[in-house]
Amino acid sequence: MAEKITPRAQDFSQWYQDVVLGSELADYSPVKGCMVIRPNGYAIWEAIQSDLNRRIKDQGVRNAYFPLFIPESFIKKEAEHVEGFAPQVAVVTYAGGKELEEKLVVRPTSETIINSMFSKWIQSYRDLPLLINQWANVVRWEMRTRLFLRTTEFLWQEGHTCHATHDEAEQFARRMLKVYQEFSEETLAMPVICGIKTESEKFAGALRTYCIEAMMQDKKALQAGTSHNLSTHFAEAFETRYLASDGKLASVHQTSWGVSTRLIGGMVMTHSDDKGLILPPRLAETHVMIIPIYGKDAAENLRVNEHAEKLAESIRKMGNQGPWSAPIQVRIDRDESKKPGWKFHQVELLGVPIRLELGPKDLEKQQAVWLRRDIGTKEFLPLDSIPARVASELPKMQSELLERARAFRIQNTHSVESYEEFKSKLESEGGFFEASWVPDAEVEKRIKDETKATVRCLPYGADFEPQRTSTPCFITGRREGTVKALFARSY
Amino acid sequence: MAEKITPRAQDFSQWYQDVVLGSELADYSPVKGCMVIRPNGYAIWEAIQSDLNRRIKDQGVRNAYFPLFIPESFIKKEAEHVEGFAPQVAVVTYAGGKELEEKLVVRPTSETIINSMFSKWIQSYRDLPLLINQWANVVRWEMRTRLFLRTTEFLWQEGHTCHATHDEAEQFARRMLKVYQEFSEETLAMPVICGIKTESEKFAGALRTYCIEAMMQDKKALQAGTSHNLSTHFAEAFETRYLASDGKLASVHQTSWGVSTRLIGGMVMTHSDDKGLILPPRLAETHVMIIPIYGKDAAENLRVNEHAEKLAESIRKMGNQGPWSAPIQVRIDRDESKKPGWKFHQVELLGVPIRLELGPKDLEKQQAVWLRRDIGTKEFLPLDSIPARVASELPKMQSELLERARAFRIQNTHSVESYEEFKSKLESEGGFFEASWVPDAEVEKRIKDETKATVRCLPYGADFEPQRTSTPCFITGRREGTVKALFARSY
Repeated sequence: MAEKITPRAQDFSQWYQDVVLGSELADYSPVKGCMVIRPNGYAIWEAIQSDLNRRIKDQGVRNAYFPLFIPESFIKKEAEHVEGFAPQVAVVTYAGGKELEEKLVVRPTSETIINSMFSKWIQSYRDLPLLINQWANVVRWEMRTRLFLRTTEFLWQEGHTCHATHDEAEQFARRMLKVYQEFSEETLAMPVICGIKTESEKFAGALRTYCIEAMMQDKKALQAGTSHNLSTHFAEAFETRYLASDGKLASVHQTSWGVSTRLIGGMVMTHSDDKGLILPPRLAETHVMIIPIYGKDAAENLRVNEHAEKLAESIRKMGNQGPWSAPIQVRIDRDESKKPGWKFHQVELLGVPIRLELGPKDLEKQQAVWLRRDIGTKEFLPLDSIPARVASELPKMQSELLERARAFRIQNTHSVESYEEFKSKLESEGGFFEASWVPDAEVEKRIKDETKATVRCLPYGADFEPQRTSTPCFITGRREGTVKALFARSY
Repeated sequence: MAEKITPRAQDFSQWYQDVVLGSELADYSPVKGCMVIRPNGYAIWEAIQSDLNRRIKDQGVRNAYFPLFIPESFIKKEAEHVEGFAPQVAVVTYAGGKELEEKLVVRPTSETIINSMFSKWIQSYRDLPLLINQWANVVRWEMRTRLFLRTTEFLWQEGHTCHATHDEAEQFARRMLKVYQEFSEETLAMPVICGIKTESEKFAGALRTYCIEAMMQDKKALQAGTSHNLSTHFAEAFETRYLASDGKLASVHQTSWGVSTRLIGGMVMTHSDDKGLILPPRLAETHVMIIPIYGKDAAENLRVNEHAEKLAESIRKMGNQGPWSAPIQVRIDRDESKKPGWKFHQVELLGVPIRLELGPKDLEKQQAVWLRRDIGTKEFLPLDSIPARVASELPKMQSELLERARAFRIQNTHSVESYEEFKSKLESEGGFFEASWVPDAEVEKRIKDETKATVRCLPYGADFEPQRTSTPCFITGRREGTVKALFARSY
């Protein structure tokens, strides 16, 4: 640990890798493209799972588990789906010492295998809606990988639902995107733009894909979650039908939606700094680290420890009440083999929200040294004021991280009226670009080829539809069918 | 649902399948040997995970996640390990549209890939002990599969630890078996025998394997969990070494331990009956189901609903206090399209611990009909007595299920002194057989071939060693080296 972190300004990508490896969130594995999520990183994933799982269940969704392997023929049943995923799949060709009669694809996503079960379980309209989610690993063969952001294997949740009508499915896809937005902003403190993917960027097999897009500190975009209205595409391929109340057989309308361990990378790139991680308190395993300052007098050190323990206990008692409404985890670093300076460094690297120092001189004054990770200014606080301060500071820090990130995004989002302006600002400043645009796959490709920027989404209005604009298309000058579009370079 | 369940006495194996499918715990998938865990089953797995995860973390173990794929060469590094697992692995040979240079094995267990990381992370004695666990899916190609009990893919947790000395590793392997025993008995209400596996039954690569064995209602044994002292076998193969405090480089001593979704099958076969599931209250998603009895008078039905809601609320208030110390989940079945008889049947099939009926006549008498799933005798209880009764009944039912299963096992465990007696009783009565035996792989094989029974374990004494006996070996008559051994037919 405690290795040097490359400053963000010098090399953002190297900074990210230094922070992720240095804080021991993850490590490279001997398997190409696959990462190891180390305990510090997995603790964040557990916090994400626990919070998001509750939100998903609040929508009436139940968890289940479907096979890792998908018969190759299943992947091929939905035409767009196979086209989208075939180049990326890993395939099991022999098992149990024998060549397999039918090859098995390691799931890149589970629409096909899940539909084969839905067809069996759904008989009539009484079985609808059917709302299922699974937490699982998936595999998509990637050439260029990056810890958390793009790995061959990753962990995610994938929701799959069946509804009687198009409208119900559409409503549900929108509702789940809203759940992702709230989760992302409230828990990850990562503000997002909600929108609709263009035809060329939508999920392979979907009618429409909704997404949330976040801005990282290097002003690039990260797609943080997607929710798809699948219409009856998979239902038709797998004959997932129900007997309607009018006695007719109809295909179900479906949605699917997912977020992955990529969120951890997004959270790191949103908040952290040149000293290491900055964790939103809602994701922190340890909220407060007390560092006792030891001297040479053993009796005095004992007294410092006793007061540190007393302080820790009184802070813990503030958990599960007031605006924080969750436990407060406090640890004391009693390791006598390490110097305080090393420990300060370590707490910064690991992103513990609040650090307290307590030495013999502090005890004399009945105070402790207080430092909030993201602000970094020392304060001397009376001991008896600290528990209440922690309880109010954790939600404060949580919302300030969100607002700081939102202010950063707003500051780096530009409205452009011409392609020239767009290209020049993209080069000089980077960021998000809002423009009036006529969606068109060829134009989209040209923009991507020429600038490496892509349409992140068409931000939607109150009606969840692309927002019509009154100015001409920034690139073609066309006046018909212009909508608001968001462009950026992305991960 | 509500299909006919084959009685246990008629065909135990068919009964098990009827219960698991009927209560919608699981279903067969289109992928050979792989099952789907349906929401009712996954809720039980989540309860198991949440409870066991806490117990594992209490031992100082932290969760992490390692790759699904293992380079084929890794599996081959430990000689016994490859011999044990090679026939069972599924292999990815092409991915991303290309033949792979090195084939990838889908993990059957993760000792090898994890050791490759441990070698990187461990430098000195200061890094020890290193205590890691992962919750993951694993794949072992199986010919004969059975829902939950033996499936090609299954979910499990696998712990992997590194220690400085043999003794520390040995202590830790024993401690984790104890954790499994307590978990199994306290949470699954499934009593287990703790013991040591013989050389031929131990884990491929282990020095010694500890196990817990449970008796099912058909008197067969189920291996429910294992904990291995791996000695330095994998550490030597992967050069997982540490600098000891004396400055010398030494291999770490390791353990690994795991339990899987198999526990769900064991729990079902321990408690359930011909009417369906019986769930230990600690695993139940719903503890109390209130079934309002509706008539033709809408106003009266409304009044019944109001009282049902009031009753539910006052029962819920008893959660998180007293001996139960957990939430109490109460549901009301308000479906007016279904008759009470159908609902009673359904609650029995799903194993809800307590069923309450509440109709207009009950309201007049300020009572409700009470029925505990495992006992099945109706009682008429004053409404105001019910909340306290639920709070005391849930822990009571939990411990009675355990004691009933334990009594059943004791009753069906026989001491035998000769092979003839063993064979004859095994045929006529089945069950567990305790005998004085001299461990010997050839004799073991002969017993298995002739009787289909195996040595389940050598039950250990207070010193965690096989218990020496003073009577001759029940099969060879030898007097030297006899120990207590447990034989049974098994899953």
